[in-house]
Amino acid sequence: MNKLSLRAAVIGATGYTGQEVMRLLRRHPRLRVAYATSESSAGTAVPGHALRYVQSGAVPFDAVDIVFTCLPTGASGAVALRAHAAGACVVDLSADLRHGAGGAVYGLTELRRPALRQAKLVANPGCYPTGIVLALAPLLRAGVVDAARATIIDAASGVTGAGRTAKRELLYAEVAEDYRAYGVGNTHRHVPEIARELSAENGGVRPPFVFTPHLLPVRRGILETIYVPLAAGADAATLREEARAAYGEEAFVEVLAAGLPSLGDVVGTNRVVMGFADVVDSGAPLALAIVAFDNLLKGAAGQAVQNANVMLGACEREGLAA
Amino acid sequence: MNKLSLRAAVIGATGYTGQEVMRLLRRHPRLRVAYATSESSAGTAVPGHALRYVQSGAVPFDAVDIVFTCLPTGASGAVALRAHAAGACVVDLSADLRHGAGGAVYGLTELRRPALRQAKLVANPGCYPTGIVLALAPLLRAGVVDAARATIIDAASGVTGAGRTAKRELLYAEVAEDYRAYGVGNTHRHVPEIARELSAENGGVRPPFVFTPHLLPVRRGILETIYVPLAAGADAATLREEARAAYGEEAFVEVLAAGLPSLGDVVGTNRVVMGFADVVDSGAPLALAIVAFDNLLKGAAGQAVQNANVMLGACEREGLAA
Amino acid sequence: MNKLSLRAAVIGATGYTGQEVMRLLRRHPRLRVAYATSESSAGTAVPGHALRYVQSGAVPFDAVDIVFTCLPTGASGAVALRAHAAGACVVDLSADLRHGAGGAVYGLTELRRPALRQAKLVANPGCYPTGIVLALAPLLRAGVVDAARATIIDAASGVTGAGRTAKRELLYAEVAEDYRAYGVGNTHRHVPEIARELSAENGGVRPPFVFTPHLLPVRRGILETIYVPLAAGADAATLREEARAAYGEEAFVEVLAAGLPSLGDVVGTNRVVMGFADVVDSGAPLALAIVAFDNLLKGAAGQAVQNANVMLGACEREGLAA
Amino acid sequence: MNKLSLRAAVIGATGYTGQEVMRLLRRHPRLRVAYATSESSAGTAVPGHALRYVQSGAVPFDAVDIVFTCLPTGASGAVALRAHAAGACVVDLSADLRHGAGGAVYGLTELRRPALRQAKLVANPGCYPTGIVLALAPLLRAGVVDAARATIIDAASGVTGAGRTAKRELLYAEVAEDYRAYGVGNTHRHVPEIARELSAENGGVRPPFVFTPHLLPVRRGILETIYVPLAAGADAATLREEARAAYGEEAFVEVLAAGLPSLGDVVGTNRVVMGFADVVDSGAPLALAIVAFDNLLKGAAGQAVQNANVMLGACEREGLAA
Repeated sequence: MNKLSLRAAVIGATGYTGQEVMRLLRRHPRLRVAYATSESSAGTAVPGHALRYVQSGAVPFDAVDIVFTCLPTGASGAVALRAHAAGACVVDLSADLRHGAGGAVYGLTELRRPALRQAKLVANPGCYPTGIVLALAPLLRAGVVDAARATIIDAASGVTGAGRTAKRELLYAEVAEDYRAYGVGNTHRHVPEIARELSAENGGVRPPFVFTPHLLPVRRGILETIYVPLAAGADAATLREEARAAYGEEAFVEVLAAGLPSLGDVVGTNRVVMGFADVVDSGAPLALAIVAFDNLLKGAAGQAVQNANVMLGACEREGLAA
Repeated sequence: MNKLSLRAAVIGATGYTGQEVMRLLRRHPRLRVAYATSESSAGTAVPGHALRYVQSGAVPFDAVDIVFTCLPTGASGAVALRAHAAGACVVDLSADLRHGAGGAVYGLTELRRPALRQAKLVANPGCYPTGIVLALAPLLRAGVVDAARATIIDAASGVTGAGRTAKRELLYAEVAEDYRAYGVGNTHRHVPEIARELSAENGGVRPPFVFTPHLLPVRRGILETIYVPLAAGADAATLREEARAAYGEEAFVEVLAAGLPSLGDVVGTNRVVMGFADVVDSGAPLALAIVAFDNLLKGAAGQAVQNANVMLGACEREGLAA
Repeated sequence: MNKLSLRAAVIGATGYTGQEVMRLLRRHPRLRVAYATSESSAGTAVPGHALRYVQSGAVPFDAVDIVFTCLPTGASGAVALRAHAAGACVVDLSADLRHGAGGAVYGLTELRRPALRQAKLVANPGCYPTGIVLALAPLLRAGVVDAARATIIDAASGVTGAGRTAKRELLYAEVAEDYRAYGVGNTHRHVPEIARELSAENGGVRPPFVFTPHLLPVRRGILETIYVPLAAGADAATLREEARAAYGEEAFVEVLAAGLPSLGDVVGTNRVVMGFADVVDSGAPLALAIVAFDNLLKGAAGQAVQNANVMLGACEREGLAA
Repeated sequence: MNKLSLRAAVIGATGYTGQEVMRLLRRHPRLRVAYATSESSAGTAVPGHALRYVQSGAVPFDAVDIVFTCLPTGASGAVALRAHAAGACVVDLSADLRHGAGGAVYGLTELRRPALRQAKLVANPGCYPTGIVLALAPLLRAGVVDAARATIIDAASGVTGAGRTAKRELLYAEVAEDYRAYGVGNTHRHVPEIARELSAENGGVRPPFVFTPHLLPVRRGILETIYVPLAAGADAATLREEARAAYGEEAFVEVLAAGLPSLGDVVGTNRVVMGFADVVDSGAPLALAIVAFDNLLKGAAGQAVQNANVMLGACEREGLAA
């Protein structure tokens, strides 16, 4: 591949994930944005690119190499399928194709690399599941989780996770100095995705878990505090060891030797950082796993570019330097 | 009691809890601040009061009716004991006397009212324990918690909970857009206080629990997301019913008929608001209890004034109108 | 007047100013909310009041004593006129009646008290003009401003000033960590109001001025940094003296003897605080006046209640304790 | 020059400007950090670099190519002079050498490039002056400013401008939801620097100006709202034209064809963005110039790296891609 030899289209380039894909591609050594769409801004200049926004209907999908569909869930998948049918490689960043529609490969890069290398259509994972599945997969595989007890996943996300549509509850004056849970009781739309992926790592059996997301008064970042019930003999060191064994070679997953990550460690990067801690006096043994990452990067646009790199045979880190 | 007949001293009036006691007493119909201490601001005017700060050594404890000691833990208890010895009623807002030193009564008002009516020395509860114990006490007493499984308490607090001492990690540029866990693994200093109080409500047996505090980028407010393992037959409605039975008459505890509280519902008030929710597909049955309150009011200064009202025979709500 | 003898209606009770009027009336000793309207929430309970929202068409204006119209500009004035025609006292919080429509009295309380005592229809001032006019009126009257040079008014407001309608540019993720000017070049809709009021205080002659508002990443509060060109012989002390002479008896205007106000000094109160400072090496002499107040209180709901108190013959401070 | 052929030392690598220099050098194609100092963290690993912090006494200044001194003002200049004496190229980021001590060249890159190319010791400009001088220099040179009237400079900065030392007034709970002026009346320490630079661009005559900084509740970014008194015949278009003529070729200065910049446009980049607007009804004619930039990048670390690139004969943009 030559430098800047590949042409990309970004569908929905003015939402938070679309903007972030655009920002990453400005620095990408091989991908060049040929088309960026925005229905409302069509005709105006794209900041940082020598380009004007076009209507999404105006993109010739057969004349681009890779398409990132960044529309809201409900609208994005159909465009992704259309682009795929026209022969482009496609990464869809919505929830539309995450359950296999159109034969899409699930794009949790570190866990699905062989399939992604062959894929033409990828469903980028949900933000919350990305951290949860990366943290728990090696532990489930190693059998160090006591699957008879529920894993508690208490998660908090910055507001860009809710998208850029104007809603009263996302106004500055509503969110600042507030904090709240939402989608509680395993009712959040990411629960089936989490369940499917954890089951896959657990021999096909769904391990019991409870997922509670909260809305943080920050712009970006997700921190997940996971209470892991331990199989006999395991402790935080065991979990850390399994995670390090799984991710030792990974560019974008860091397992802390000590301490726990915070949002400030990861925002602005494509990294997932995780740490483990013992808990005393907990009754039946459990340990804490805390995972942090940027919901717009490893949780969305960063992983999308990472997946595109894999699909296109480029170096996985291109355009994603910390 | 006549209006404004009682004289108060506030020791450590420029920290966050001291400031908040001062603010509440400005509106209190019966208590008047006679002395407010600040070592560094002695001699300067007290905002909103016709008063100047004095050194704490200059307060004649035998000439005041009630003393609020608001110094940092480690320094506060000794002053409280001195004031008590001089005959004043005392509420200590530090952690120094929470384990019974000096015969202090533990001031979780709603649960200790009879003892507080007789008390001359009160240890105001820690902020985190206030919400946890209020939420779990009626459930433990009613036997609807499965004490064989751990209760998970995932908590988040605004930064005023860490006090007003200048520390790098509390600078605006460090806290804004960040979120992190700290004192994990049941190592936080509030754990013994929580354990003692939950044991007391559980027939003397410590129920297993895990407590994980997080630092929120907000100024004030605590939200505690509690995963309650359920005894056979119980569900969220059962928990709600027990809580309503316990707190139906309380001015400062609200049990939501539906929905869950957020920080925005409680900051600036002395109220604790709690809600309950069922969880599907959790394996062994559990429910969510979410509790929210203002760490500087019901979690500190508000509860201190509430306790003072009880000790002095005043109406419990005086000076604490929402 | 007896306690709670007066019935109020709040039209548009769920916007930011409407909510704030509701909050103030909860504590008001004489006014009781009889009707609170919300088209979208009609039928649901009003937080903190024993009341349900109604449609605004359902309010019998002839059966209430005072009406606060808090709808968006464009919609509010017509309702205010209707309520006025039905015989109620009315304070309109929009911009609709600020230029005398319907014979409304301009409600800058401290400057218009005699007219307000007789008024049945009051146009509550704009938020920005409230501070500017209060700061400059005594200076213009005293002739200490050099009216040959422009007064520069650099202002910054929290986002609640923009209302509670969902707009993309007011989302948390857009406003946090941002700061921007808007409505520059004397194009903001408050400019004619400022010009009219300053002219009235300046013998009918418009003094030249430039007004530049900025959007601050805070929820509430306005700070106005005013560069006052000085008449011969005047300095900051002269300005301070004139302001103190004008406002010495006022409950809600504070002129600092030294130092300058910040938002933190005023948010949550109905006070306007102002300070003055000399400037060295400025060429032709000028001084700084800095004014701070809460845009939702003295800049909107607080001043509305203050005006209602005056109109109804109550004590001006009722329901507005700091 | 070969890739990564040059060795850098960063003195004071854990303050906000030092951290930012470190972050930039991680991506710099030619500069490699050989030494990073921190007295308190000496011996611990440097995040993102394969390096450990050392004491500043341990740096062999004769064995590095470029030294960035990032200590607090008062401590930094002496180290810079020592490094310079040892033969290293030096950029000092403090205020210590900005008035020519040690023969330091003032590092406002766009205005001093020829001198910088020869320089071995550079005093990096203050953050506030960077934007002010870049905006006003072309206007003063072109004679479109009416130097008989004062230019008003109303500026606002994020808190990282105040450094990383723990001070109570910089705590999150003090800064959030606050806004205040400080160093008013031309008393801020940047005033002499601004005066000297504006004089230099104005034929040696100090143009009258007033500088008022404010503290914004954001982490980074400076926005300066400048009221420019206009010479006869000039308007905003004239100013824009002069600025575009001056900076048309510059990589890091953008003059907007229309509209005004906000913090969000520049934070995270090394760019200064400026816009101009007319003002109606201002009395004697004036126009607005609004300038925005990141105080830690173009206002500190970014400009320091830009200066280092010039001193070392590298491409000025290296390591500074937006």
